[in-house]
Amino acid sequence: MIASNPYKVKGGSYLIEEVKPEQVFTPEDFTEEQIMIGNMTEEFVKEKVMPELEKIENHEFEHSVRLLKEAGDLGLLGADVPEKYEGSALDKVSSSLITEKMALGRSFALSHGAHVGIGCLPIVLFGNDDQKKKYLPDLATGRKFAAYALTEPSSGSDALGAKTTAMLSADGTHYVLNGEKQWITNSGFAEVFVVYAKVDGDKFSAFIVEKGFEGVSTGPEEKKMGIKGSSTRTLILEDAKVPVENLLYEVGKGHHIAFNILNIGRYKLAVGTVGSSKRAIELSAKYANQRKQFNIPIAKFGLIQEKLANMAIKAYANESLVYRIGGMFDAGLDGVEEAEGAVVADAVRDLAIECSAAKVFGSEVLDYAVDEGVQIHGGYGFMSEYEIENLYRDSRINRIFEGTNEINRLIIPGTLVKMAMKGELPLLQAAMALQEELLEYMPSLPDEDAAVLEEEAKLVSHAKKIFLMVAGLAVQKYEQALEREQEILRDLADIAIEIFAMESALLRTQKAIAKNGEEKEEAKIDLTVGFVYESFQKVDAFARHTLAAMEEGDVLRTTLSMLKKFTRVQPLNEVALKRRIAKRVLDAEKYTV
Amino acid sequence: MIASNPYKVKGGSYLIEEVKPEQVFTPEDFTEEQIMIGNMTEEFVKEKVMPELEKIENHEFEHSVRLLKEAGDLGLLGADVPEKYEGSALDKVSSSLITEKMALGRSFALSHGAHVGIGCLPIVLFGNDDQKKKYLPDLATGRKFAAYALTEPSSGSDALGAKTTAMLSADGTHYVLNGEKQWITNSGFAEVFVVYAKVDGDKFSAFIVEKGFEGVSTGPEEKKMGIKGSSTRTLILEDAKVPVENLLYEVGKGHHIAFNILNIGRYKLAVGTVGSSKRAIELSAKYANQRKQFNIPIAKFGLIQEKLANMAIKAYANESLVYRIGGMFDAGLDGVEEAEGAVVADAVRDLAIECSAAKVFGSEVLDYAVDEGVQIHGGYGFMSEYEIENLYRDSRINRIFEGTNEINRLIIPGTLVKMAMKGELPLLQAAMALQEELLEYMPSLPDEDAAVLEEEAKLVSHAKKIFLMVAGLAVQKYEQALEREQEILRDLADIAIEIFAMESALLRTQKAIAKNGEEKEEAKIDLTVGFVYESFQKVDAFARHTLAAMEEGDVLRTTLSMLKKFTRVQPLNEVALKRRIAKRVLDAEKYTV
Ligand SMILES: Cc1cc2nc3c(=O)[nH]c(=O)nc-3n(C[C@H](O)[C@H](O)[C@H](O)COP(=O)(O)OP(=O)(O)OC[C@H]3O[C@@H](n4cnc5c(N)ncnc54)[C@H](O)[C@@H]3O)c2cc1C
Ligand SMILES: Cc1cc2nc3c(=O)[nH]c(=O)nc-3n(C[C@H](O)[C@H](O)[C@H](O)COP(=O)(O)OP(=O)(O)OC[C@H]3O[C@@H](n4cnc5c(N)ncnc54)[C@H](O)[C@@H]3O)c2cc1C
Repeated sequence: MIASNPYKVKGGSYLIEEVKPEQVFTPEDFTEEQIMIGNMTEEFVKEKVMPELEKIENHEFEHSVRLLKEAGDLGLLGADVPEKYEGSALDKVSSSLITEKMALGRSFALSHGAHVGIGCLPIVLFGNDDQKKKYLPDLATGRKFAAYALTEPSSGSDALGAKTTAMLSADGTHYVLNGEKQWITNSGFAEVFVVYAKVDGDKFSAFIVEKGFEGVSTGPEEKKMGIKGSSTRTLILEDAKVPVENLLYEVGKGHHIAFNILNIGRYKLAVGTVGSSKRAIELSAKYANQRKQFNIPIAKFGLIQEKLANMAIKAYANESLVYRIGGMFDAGLDGVEEAEGAVVADAVRDLAIECSAAKVFGSEVLDYAVDEGVQIHGGYGFMSEYEIENLYRDSRINRIFEGTNEINRLIIPGTLVKMAMKGELPLLQAAMALQEELLEYMPSLPDEDAAVLEEEAKLVSHAKKIFLMVAGLAVQKYEQALEREQEILRDLADIAIEIFAMESALLRTQKAIAKNGEEKEEAKIDLTVGFVYESFQKVDAFARHTLAAMEEGDVLRTTLSMLKKFTRVQPLNEVALKRRIAKRVLDAEKYTV
Repeated sequence: MIASNPYKVKGGSYLIEEVKPEQVFTPEDFTEEQIMIGNMTEEFVKEKVMPELEKIENHEFEHSVRLLKEAGDLGLLGADVPEKYEGSALDKVSSSLITEKMALGRSFALSHGAHVGIGCLPIVLFGNDDQKKKYLPDLATGRKFAAYALTEPSSGSDALGAKTTAMLSADGTHYVLNGEKQWITNSGFAEVFVVYAKVDGDKFSAFIVEKGFEGVSTGPEEKKMGIKGSSTRTLILEDAKVPVENLLYEVGKGHHIAFNILNIGRYKLAVGTVGSSKRAIELSAKYANQRKQFNIPIAKFGLIQEKLANMAIKAYANESLVYRIGGMFDAGLDGVEEAEGAVVADAVRDLAIECSAAKVFGSEVLDYAVDEGVQIHGGYGFMSEYEIENLYRDSRINRIFEGTNEINRLIIPGTLVKMAMKGELPLLQAAMALQEELLEYMPSLPDEDAAVLEEEAKLVSHAKKIFLMVAGLAVQKYEQALEREQEILRDLADIAIEIFAMESALLRTQKAIAKNGEEKEEAKIDLTVGFVYESFQKVDAFARHTLAAMEEGDVLRTTLSMLKKFTRVQPLNEVALKRRIAKRVLDAEKYTV
């Protein structure tokens, strides 16, 4: 166990409080053991999985199953399962490293991820002792595989709109389930499904359903854009008989399970994007060094360098924020081993904002990386025998599942408002305090001679003020009706996401500097400067977008000039910066910090 | 023939001159006949092609061939071929309408486009009388099909780096060609290839090569991300015997053909993106109206509306600029029917900047549209049975072929500098005149009560000044070495592209207002306002990016404050605007102006 206390901070609090470098867990804090687990996973994927991907993508799932079992032998399935159920009960950072490295295995990573994540976790976190004893040992070791069946043809984002029903049998021994679940990952070979259904037509509840139960079957494989080696079918429940012992948690409390598991799923998805983005960078850097046009490697062209630098800058922020959350998870779950589902649920729910932010950010960083990766490959990027082509198609799903990015964006202000109402987060107080401060506030001008990252730290702090100012005005103006102003909610979400990303990169670099000094951390400094500069300008644009939608005339002019106090930025020579960053990536032929 | 004179303007001149609404051809100027041709094409594609697409994508090219022949019977192959060779010699706007409507046919559109465009045009424009007589009648009617073979495994962007050789035989009767051409569209069924090879190892030249010639063969079909129904193979030339009569144009002048044909190819590609973007809008609007979540159609959600509005806004600019170029082509080629290749080449070359701008802009508009289209479809967008999934994969190639978007961006400032040096465009004079003007210039402040589109017209004119200012400073600073500053050249290109797009939308709308009055043109006004607002802010950002890369300290501060004179923008309530635009799209269930 890592010393997790310093990372224990309230979810969402980063928006109103100053966070210190010591308070964030960073990849530089990985223990030897964590690094070892990561390396082992990477080796397994490279040596065992990658050579079989073509077969797996060809729906020869016997290979997925065999390799998943091998992963089980290596302990790569039980990271989140307590030891007494044959798991390895690793910390979340270790478990994240497994996820990151698995991403190399593309479709296979999804099979793995759905199994250990949304498949097993409902039982790990919400199962009773008997259920855990019955299912977890098989799942943790790879004797059986799990899937998560929430979505239906007519209910995706609106998960609670599910139509699948569960009726208690007359003799009270079992539930009878009827309905169709759609796009269930791992459905081609999973034996254990966590299925959501409404008891008596309205009490949303979860059940552990075995493939072998009467009335349970699956449909044909879907034809998909990407992740073709991930099994995706419907799960058909026709008078399916599920013993009452297999009700998970409590009747009518399925949404506790569903949403908290999705939170973890979102976080894990984001971790996966770190691995895939790094892969896209590696493939692209290697290709750029090797491909010649006009008699020189295309890596020499400024436009290629700029793409690689952008990929690296975004990947750095992504990696920083993901492991920061990993540290927060460990801190939040510290000592909670094997507690009641409700306790765990609280700890997980507390990080809802960070999980949604990571999911949105990571999936968009990855889509950027694979898109530019394809472009760097030119025509070869469009050919299926090139890995980057696969990554491009595979990555697109990440903005859709585990809650679309629209839904995840809406969750962020929605959760904040809820936390504020419950008094969990003094958001309104902070916004009001700011409003008073604002009129007189005179931020220092951008300073050319500022110390390293001083300017960036100021921008992050300004971005927080901007968030509070805009959010405060929006709540004041729309009150309850703010719910209907999705475009504004989205702006608020995006500001919150950018702040989290900027701050995570900044604090990580500051922490590294504190340890190693500036000279040794030039790469991280460049990446941070590049990221904060661009990200902050987005914050400015989102804020202006929302203000212009809320007010007009003199009021708008006044608020815009208030905003301007915080948005002055020292111009940055991005060209020189990005060439430096690209040089490091090209020299290393991979993402490097 | 349309009255084309008003549209006759020098390529690239829009950057330094004011253009009037009467000087741009717009879709509102389509003749009855042009509209009829478009409708006929659309009907053909919908009724004949679309039902066969699955087979075509399955590489059953006999269907492509059969349907191409049917297209030939309808006169849809010969639009660019003179009547005396059995073509229909349509104006370029009609030919563009065919291309736009064909886009519905996805892969098939590519087979059609490669045949009528890059396949036939080299012979149409550069063939001698005998060659035209021999090949065009078959090609114009669909008895034979053509392909264009320029790229090689090691030369793509660097087309002149081709390694294929041509040696005159000892008896002087034929050339012997050796080499491999790669990714040749239509290669699976084409009988006629325009092949580029170097005579005596250095004189880049073009040849008409028949599939049946000794030593000519094709490789296997490539496995691609998209446009799977387009045949893509290598063309293998092993001591291929090509009669001397089949040398096209002149020895050592192959690049005249290659590059001018690519210009037209780029333009046609852009026209295709107009059709595909409209299709993405239609599919997405229909889906959004029909799909319910949370008990209401997702079309009611602000975030969905915003996507549809953005798609429409971009499509409007794209459509406006594409047909503006169509009008310019017709004007430039007016009276040049069947002239010498060199004369035609000049007319085409004159529009190099506009063609590259359209290619870049259109391909990126389309990628945006299909990406958001997928997102609107949620999980269904990832399923191959949904057309939007196909569009997503198909569209990605457009940023790669006909010159990558990087190459096309670099072409824009490159061509401008060449034109300036040759005295074809008084660019430097304009830049210098501006510099003097700049110091004292005091643009009027943004005006809330400005007349309709007055503010937008001012922004377009400011954007031109910004272009001249930044380009002038860049040329002054780097002189010849500017060539190596690709990031800056890219900024200049992007500014030039945005200006062309903004101006095209603006002038089109002004022209429509002049005819029908403001009340009837509210849709166009909204689309224009939305586009100019966003586009202008990009121009501002590109300019700042380049200035910060060129200068520092006081000089930078001075230039940035000069820039600021032109970049003040009246804030716009984009939310309200986009909801209005989305409403029209959703009511019509398609792109509508
Ligand atoms: C390959 C694949 C694997 C999957 N694996 C699983 C799995 O293992 N288990 C499982 O249960 N599910 C799984 N899913 C389902 C996935 O979680 C859903 O696709 C996702 O939640 C989106 O739902 P939907 O597809 O019905 O889209 P919809 O909810 O119909 O959304 C359509 C569009 O409307 C938008 N939208 C919806 N509601 C709102 C709103 N209130 N405000 C604004 N915009 C809104 C969405 O953002 C989207 O753009 C999988 C899906 C795929 C494609
Ligand atoms: C499906 C398909 C169909 C095609 N059909 C045809 C056809 O019918 N006929 C034909 O002749 N060709 C065809 N092509 C080839 C196509 O035109 C080339 O792929 C394209 O020109 C790019 O060349 P490339 O793939 O070699 O990329 P490269 O030239 O290797 O480029 C790789 C990367 O380097 C960048 N780059 C290259 N040079 C520079 C530079 N100087 N500065 C900055 N960046 C640079 C590129 O932008 C790209 O990002 C087709 C290709 C595909 C994929």
